[in-house]
Amino acid sequence: MASLIAPVDSHVPSEDAEALYKACKGWGTNEKAIISILGHRNAAQRKQIRLAYSELFQEDLVKRLESELNGDFEKAVYRWVLDPEDRDAVLANVAIRKSGDYHVIVEIACVLSSEELLAVRRAYHARYKHSLEEDLAAHTTGDIRKLLVGLVTAFRYEGDEINTRLTNSEADILHDAIKDKAFNHEDVIRILTTRSKAQLMATFNRYRDDHGSSITKDLLDEPADEFKTVLRTAIRCLNDHKKYYEKILRNAIKKVGTDEDALTRVIVTRAEKDLNDIKEIYYKRNSVPLDQAVANDTSGDYKAFLLALLGKEE
Amino acid sequence: MASLIAPVDSHVPSEDAEALYKACKGWGTNEKAIISILGHRNAAQRKQIRLAYSELFQEDLVKRLESELNGDFEKAVYRWVLDPEDRDAVLANVAIRKSGDYHVIVEIACVLSSEELLAVRRAYHARYKHSLEEDLAAHTTGDIRKLLVGLVTAFRYEGDEINTRLTNSEADILHDAIKDKAFNHEDVIRILTTRSKAQLMATFNRYRDDHGSSITKDLLDEPADEFKTVLRTAIRCLNDHKKYYEKILRNAIKKVGTDEDALTRVIVTRAEKDLNDIKEIYYKRNSVPLDQAVANDTSGDYKAFLLALLGKEE
Repeated sequence: MASLIAPVDSHVPSEDAEALYKACKGWGTNEKAIISILGHRNAAQRKQIRLAYSELFQEDLVKRLESELNGDFEKAVYRWVLDPEDRDAVLANVAIRKSGDYHVIVEIACVLSSEELLAVRRAYHARYKHSLEEDLAAHTTGDIRKLLVGLVTAFRYEGDEINTRLTNSEADILHDAIKDKAFNHEDVIRILTTRSKAQLMATFNRYRDDHGSSITKDLLDEPADEFKTVLRTAIRCLNDHKKYYEKILRNAIKKVGTDEDALTRVIVTRAEKDLNDIKEIYYKRNSVPLDQAVANDTSGDYKAFLLALLGKEE
Repeated sequence: MASLIAPVDSHVPSEDAEALYKACKGWGTNEKAIISILGHRNAAQRKQIRLAYSELFQEDLVKRLESELNGDFEKAVYRWVLDPEDRDAVLANVAIRKSGDYHVIVEIACVLSSEELLAVRRAYHARYKHSLEEDLAAHTTGDIRKLLVGLVTAFRYEGDEINTRLTNSEADILHDAIKDKAFNHEDVIRILTTRSKAQLMATFNRYRDDHGSSITKDLLDEPADEFKTVLRTAIRCLNDHKKYYEKILRNAIKKVGTDEDALTRVIVTRAEKDLNDIKEIYYKRNSVPLDQAVANDTSGDYKAFLLALLGKEE
């Protein structure tokens, strides 16, 4: 369930656009007004507001907000105000250029549905005049490239059908590869980049039933390297992305100084999807409500904005 | 330009459905009537006819035609009556199961536009409850797998922008790989599976300008093997698919006994797209009109149907 609280019917894009214009006009910016509007509009509504704004004031709302705001608040609002697929295209591009930030790419490739991932690839074309896989492949090499390019180019089948024979044989292939430390085995990459999520979940369950521990646990027992980290992130995102995001949030908050990039990313990308479920998992694991933990770790407009997206006003 | 001659406005799907029903009813089938209707309807019209037929007669037109017709004629009508993306999904699946028939897969991956290829991947999901890349990867290994899976999963950028610096460096990478007989070099696969067609064409031109002969010519000078054949087919389809198809038709007709599979495939898949251009190239190369060559090499209803799709009645 989404955490975002947005009006269902009563939304008038041109009124929002006018209010945002006023909030940005003259000396000083009315951040509270910006939060009270944008923190309560879903993707379709935000798109209408952007269109109304550009029609009424002949300027780009996104650029205007960028010039008015700053710091973590600016970053969060910028990410939020974009269309979800466009935001993910931006996140992917930033991650590609900052090589080593592969978990963001893995999240986009493995958490989104097939059609959502495709929408990101389309948005990437429009924004960067390249394909996502083209830039990714040009910035990576070897096994990491094979795995990442395979993940972002996948268009997985999304039905529930499971082939039990395959589940057994592919659980064994994965287990043998880990036992032999052949993590980059071409069949490991083939299985993870082409099978449906339902099939993979059944395979991971089979793995755990047959071999007594989970595949992610077995991978964690091995000395970490970049490839194994990407592999493990992919498995976690494919298998249970809500649990994965809880851990990202936990680490972001636990970190001395807070990892605002991760905090913003998870809240902004999940607020309209399943952030309420993630909040529940967070509370179970940490015995502290997520909004309280976020409130303790952030401040000012940034804090107010994240709390709005979390469905809790200050 | 398309070769198919279809009515622009005057098409009434229910009338066509009734006429097809009559043509199939009772003893004997009126093949001429089937050809005179289906041989002159575009994809949107054929779809409407299928829907009208199933509504009026509670049966599937495609299945009915399959049971009424036979031989090469049946195969051609079956391929033609499907939606283009569904037809390509069927062609790809047949090719995957008949391993070694990789040129059909390469054609689909490299000739279609990014959105058309995607439509085929969607149709493949619906028909086979797997993804295209999943089945392809499970039926292939090694370098062939890397290249083929990379080609079918590509979602290439389709703008005209060309990066000249890349053109130069990647023409050199390709040339060095061929010179060193490292045809399966990971950069060769990366370049061919991720760059836009405009970029690749510029790269192939650069190759020819810098090195005095074309990349396809240089590949042909090497001893043939399966990987090199797939590589060369991909380059030809990406670079100039009309010229490629002319050669497929030429070989299909020249072959003792005629290669009906290839003949049907090219005519059925290109009749609504650019078969007139391919006819022109064929005539220039062979000094015989394509429809005349097809008429000399085929017979009966199959011949009449192909000629209808070629835009020429007997």
